[in-house]
Amino acid sequence: MNMANTEFSLPLRVYIEDTDAGGIVYYINYLKYMERARTEFMRSLGYAKTAIFADDLMFVVHTSNVQYLDSARLDDEVVVTAKPVKMGKTNICFHQQVRRGTSVLCRADIRIACVDQKNRKPRAMPVSMQQTIQSFITVPEE
Amino acid sequence: MNMANTEFSLPLRVYIEDTDAGGIVYYINYLKYMERARTEFMRSLGYAKTAIFADDLMFVVHTSNVQYLDSARLDDEVVVTAKPVKMGKTNICFHQQVRRGTSVLCRADIRIACVDQKNRKPRAMPVSMQQTIQSFITVPEE
Amino acid sequence: MNMANTEFSLPLRVYIEDTDAGGIVYYINYLKYMERARTEFMRSLGYAKTAIFADDLMFVVHTSNVQYLDSARLDDEVVVTAKPVKMGKTNICFHQQVRRGTSVLCRADIRIACVDQKNRKPRAMPVSMQQTIQSFITVPEE
Amino acid sequence: MNMANTEFSLPLRVYIEDTDAGGIVYYINYLKYMERARTEFMRSLGYAKTAIFADDLMFVVHTSNVQYLDSARLDDEVVVTAKPVKMGKTNICFHQQVRRGTSVLCRADIRIACVDQKNRKPRAMPVSMQQTIQSFITVPEE
Repeated sequence: MNMANTEFSLPLRVYIEDTDAGGIVYYINYLKYMERARTEFMRSLGYAKTAIFADDLMFVVHTSNVQYLDSARLDDEVVVTAKPVKMGKTNICFHQQVRRGTSVLCRADIRIACVDQKNRKPRAMPVSMQQTIQSFITVPEE
Repeated sequence: MNMANTEFSLPLRVYIEDTDAGGIVYYINYLKYMERARTEFMRSLGYAKTAIFADDLMFVVHTSNVQYLDSARLDDEVVVTAKPVKMGKTNICFHQQVRRGTSVLCRADIRIACVDQKNRKPRAMPVSMQQTIQSFITVPEE
Repeated sequence: MNMANTEFSLPLRVYIEDTDAGGIVYYINYLKYMERARTEFMRSLGYAKTAIFADDLMFVVHTSNVQYLDSARLDDEVVVTAKPVKMGKTNICFHQQVRRGTSVLCRADIRIACVDQKNRKPRAMPVSMQQTIQSFITVPEE
Repeated sequence: MNMANTEFSLPLRVYIEDTDAGGIVYYINYLKYMERARTEFMRSLGYAKTAIFADDLMFVVHTSNVQYLDSARLDDEVVVTAKPVKMGKTNICFHQQVRRGTSVLCRADIRIACVDQKNRKPRAMPVSMQQTIQSFITVPEE
């Protein structure tokens, strides 16, 4: 099944805990929003974090490249997307956005590595997980 | 209308951002959960934070008395309640719980003060807000 | 040695990460400041967290009763105190304050329990730790 | 005066608030550490945030590109560096690292924009600020 045109998105509300003295969302917190969206995307595929942990695996963020374009404010409703765009046996690259209506507030490329929970060395994801995530990638790579 | 037997509750998921090196939710974060529940309770009554700000008012936490009984873990689904139990013209006392299933993980009494946004002095809430919140209190006080 | 008149204090700077859209320190973050002060107080006695962990012990917060009196702002220099005021074999009560100059912004009573790292049941602190902490308490109790 | 070989660095302690259920510093928090270092670097030059705000200016993060190489743990002492590497009239690019001993845990390129506090449009930094920061850049650009 090819899910390549599907975009996973998570609606979120901005709370006071997310803001800073500039009156806007503290930019670091967009990374929290993005991780929530990746977590829910993986959960929607059957890979809750606890399931991954049970396999002695762990996902860690390897690289986060983020551009901040505009700001969300208190009480705003935003939508956070998560789309795998490239993958290898031990890693996944996600493209993610935080949007308010049609306006993109923040966009990011986040590279996740799959590692052994004990020694933190790269480990291949289970093949079924690789295949499932691969089905979301528009132009299959590697 | 008497809403006194109603309990407002907000379901929440525990994310990695909420946890600490003890493998459980960092206890301070239950206070964030509780504020989200109070915010949604007020929103359900028509009092979004932006509406309150527009009136030059602001709610600030005056006292937080919290007991930590058990811990939530990564991926847990918890429910956070918010129930006004006492109020005056310028303040509201909430009783709140964080629960997982029937287990109470954390309970708190939080006293909120209504203040002027500019000088931070106590100010009476609008009468309609007082009446609305009062209707949720089991034994009317003050 | 009686240390009962000694007050441990930790100077801290308020950063943008600590503030919220109200332009002040987000009240929950005072609890982070207070934990830093307790951690440094214990470290000053030779009990770094890693040392405590090595003993299969762990400190968890059991109760936090906090009063918020005034607010710290961006760039403020504050001082956070930590003073044990009561203790048993398995717990310590701290009185703590966050101050800016002579002004008390926030004061708290925090009860810490010593638990087994594995089963989270209460466990007695090592006797030498009990004695050391006891020496800071003005009127010895229990 | 050419400060180009100078590297500003800020020592920090890892607290429980900084960690996550993986037992390590939650990766997003390195961005908080880096902002503290930039803030202290600017303060060391006489540009505290409150001073910048008083000029109706504000610095906002425009881009953050971060690589996570290794992890800090509870109680670790780390050093966070901040070095301007490129600048224009309205922006500064910093190269930053988080190090434990000689080991680089995390490195980042952070681009900061100077904006008008009211309308959030780019505004030139005061000339003296530009010159001061320029003196820290090894190969002067623009």
